[in-house]
Amino acid sequence: MKLSQRVNEVPFSAIRKLTPVAEKAKKQGKKVYHLNIGAPDTKTPVEFLDSIRAIELDTIDYAPSKGMKGIREATCNYYAKKGKQYDPETEIVITSGASEALKFAAEIVADLGENIVTTNPFYSNYYTMFREIGIHLNTFDTLVEEGYRLPAKEVIQKGIDERTRGILISNPSNPTGAVYSRDELQAVVDVAIENDLYILADEVYSEFVFDGAEFCSFTEFEGIDDRLILLDSISKRFGACGARIGALLSKNKEVMDAAVRLATSRLAVSTVDQVGAAALYEVSEEYFKEVNEEYNKRRLAIYEELSKIKGVKLTKPEGAFYVMPELPIKDSDHFAKWLLEEFDDNGETVMVAPAFGFYHGTDIGKKQVRLAYVINEKDIRRSIQIIKKALDVYKESYE
Amino acid sequence: MKLSQRVNEVPFSAIRKLTPVAEKAKKQGKKVYHLNIGAPDTKTPVEFLDSIRAIELDTIDYAPSKGMKGIREATCNYYAKKGKQYDPETEIVITSGASEALKFAAEIVADLGENIVTTNPFYSNYYTMFREIGIHLNTFDTLVEEGYRLPAKEVIQKGIDERTRGILISNPSNPTGAVYSRDELQAVVDVAIENDLYILADEVYSEFVFDGAEFCSFTEFEGIDDRLILLDSISKRFGACGARIGALLSKNKEVMDAAVRLATSRLAVSTVDQVGAAALYEVSEEYFKEVNEEYNKRRLAIYEELSKIKGVKLTKPEGAFYVMPELPIKDSDHFAKWLLEEFDDNGETVMVAPAFGFYHGTDIGKKQVRLAYVINEKDIRRSIQIIKKALDVYKESYE
Repeated sequence: MKLSQRVNEVPFSAIRKLTPVAEKAKKQGKKVYHLNIGAPDTKTPVEFLDSIRAIELDTIDYAPSKGMKGIREATCNYYAKKGKQYDPETEIVITSGASEALKFAAEIVADLGENIVTTNPFYSNYYTMFREIGIHLNTFDTLVEEGYRLPAKEVIQKGIDERTRGILISNPSNPTGAVYSRDELQAVVDVAIENDLYILADEVYSEFVFDGAEFCSFTEFEGIDDRLILLDSISKRFGACGARIGALLSKNKEVMDAAVRLATSRLAVSTVDQVGAAALYEVSEEYFKEVNEEYNKRRLAIYEELSKIKGVKLTKPEGAFYVMPELPIKDSDHFAKWLLEEFDDNGETVMVAPAFGFYHGTDIGKKQVRLAYVINEKDIRRSIQIIKKALDVYKESYE
Repeated sequence: MKLSQRVNEVPFSAIRKLTPVAEKAKKQGKKVYHLNIGAPDTKTPVEFLDSIRAIELDTIDYAPSKGMKGIREATCNYYAKKGKQYDPETEIVITSGASEALKFAAEIVADLGENIVTTNPFYSNYYTMFREIGIHLNTFDTLVEEGYRLPAKEVIQKGIDERTRGILISNPSNPTGAVYSRDELQAVVDVAIENDLYILADEVYSEFVFDGAEFCSFTEFEGIDDRLILLDSISKRFGACGARIGALLSKNKEVMDAAVRLATSRLAVSTVDQVGAAALYEVSEEYFKEVNEEYNKRRLAIYEELSKIKGVKLTKPEGAFYVMPELPIKDSDHFAKWLLEEFDDNGETVMVAPAFGFYHGTDIGKKQVRLAYVINEKDIRRSIQIIKKALDVYKESYE
């Protein structure tokens, strides 16, 4: 039987598509270092499971569609401390991860056949999600040679046409690790105002900014409250990806009314996860500092090791926990599969995410891979050393 | 700023739209009996929280996109006991409630502007969900006078046009409480085969069938494996609506490949809920029997009390926990709001779901309400007695 065209056009996740190949490699006895997926290995604070263990409910009933009071208030308090006030009653809807928040936001701003513009490269699931709901993804380029900085206004403008309804920015960037400056974001704000576009701000990595770099949030800009939709998640903030708690926040009343209607249509988000997530906000500042320091060590390690490989292009990443180097290869899909199927160094190999799926309308990703530095420093160094050795072998055979 | 047309067309839930009015009534000191929402008050088996309390995980990581092994196997075992084999590795994807399973199924079978046909009346969120993703809802009528039985093949066929891609059936029916016979379902199967349509089977109330009526599942029909997509949920089965665990099952390999791609795009379902849900399948048969007996008492009570009201049209419901009577009124939206705002009997009133939002393209729902018998028998009797008194007052003023 025929499937819909849209679902045929939804690609398999660039991050997970080689999982069966990795499973096979493991069955053959290889050890596989996972740099493909941004699932932090850091401990989820005990507050999560502790609060859930304390739940005394006879009936696990639907939570309110817009989210439980505890997690709504905790999230708004978090933003208040950062200097942005959101009313927990009317300006936040709790979602199933930032994924659902983005889907709601996209459905709210764009009709079928309209588009949202973002950076090229972008978080690969942006594309798959938009295909599902009938929205096109427009892009403007950010370049490895420029450390994936946001380009000038004129370049951003080129990604916009008469059917563009919003600009979506991931900052700190998944997949590139770039952290955008106030001036870079100002260009986005200007373009949004000039073209009357919504700004969809994916700032889920905001706690992962290094080297004393300053994180600038879209919430700090004046005069864009009406067009700003903030996409939030506890997944990375607290190393709790499996809790599936995110949020959509906006000071635009009509946007929030629509978000509540969409939330009501799917009834509710997990009651238990909402309890646990609210408790996570009770962790001390020390927690963020410790986690940040750990990731910083990993960041420096992956950058140092990658810098030792001849032909690798990369600027030192500033945030999130990804790097997107260009490797001296022609087809990272082939290389990534080859790494798992045909290569090992003392029985060990590495799983990377080929970058092709993080780009739209260009082959540039074929030379690149996305690496998530979510394993310990020692394993990171070893992983990149394996890649270095692998490249030597690979180049002889395929390049 | 402009919102998308699609989101403007997503109505607020027919079931929850009067919630603010009910909140206001409660603040004024009224006691409100909730017959509007199908959230069971029965206890969630202790296995759910017990298994969650026993979780020992340092990191709450993403679960596999298609779901954790435990809940996939438990769900497939449940169906195997009912006589239908699904492979837990390849023929099931765990979803965030049946809501997400339905959304996936609809996206898989229908492109933008195509449609899925269902009964009129239907579960109101079918319409809102389809609006979001650009699918139209076609309908064929089932009538209160006929106990909302499925109509003859010719009537079903009238709901189908060249853009119809699937037939969606809720059995036992939300919102009507009808349980369809094998012959009635055979007509659906015949129409599906003749028109090459998918069958989307929403059987989440399958444990709620009364009076010794026999539940017939679409899984029992031969020769439709390729076109059958089963939508599953633990919400009603175990009185665990807040756990947000559902599933999409099919023996069509391409459908399942697409479902996995969609699941991967939103990463995962709650890890903790999946652990709890798997444990729920360890409850004894006795649990289902007790719950069923309790709902049967409530069903008989609501039917008996409603039968005492002059001008009410209703056939005795056979399943789920809803009834959809016609009341002697002209506008159930107005009546439902009036009940909360202007009426009370000794300080008590009732919240009902006006039926307009459960219908498409007709005003017939304006005379009807959906009542969920999810409160105890005594409160049900009292609630309907309040409605009876209210109707006497209301008729004098408004009819």
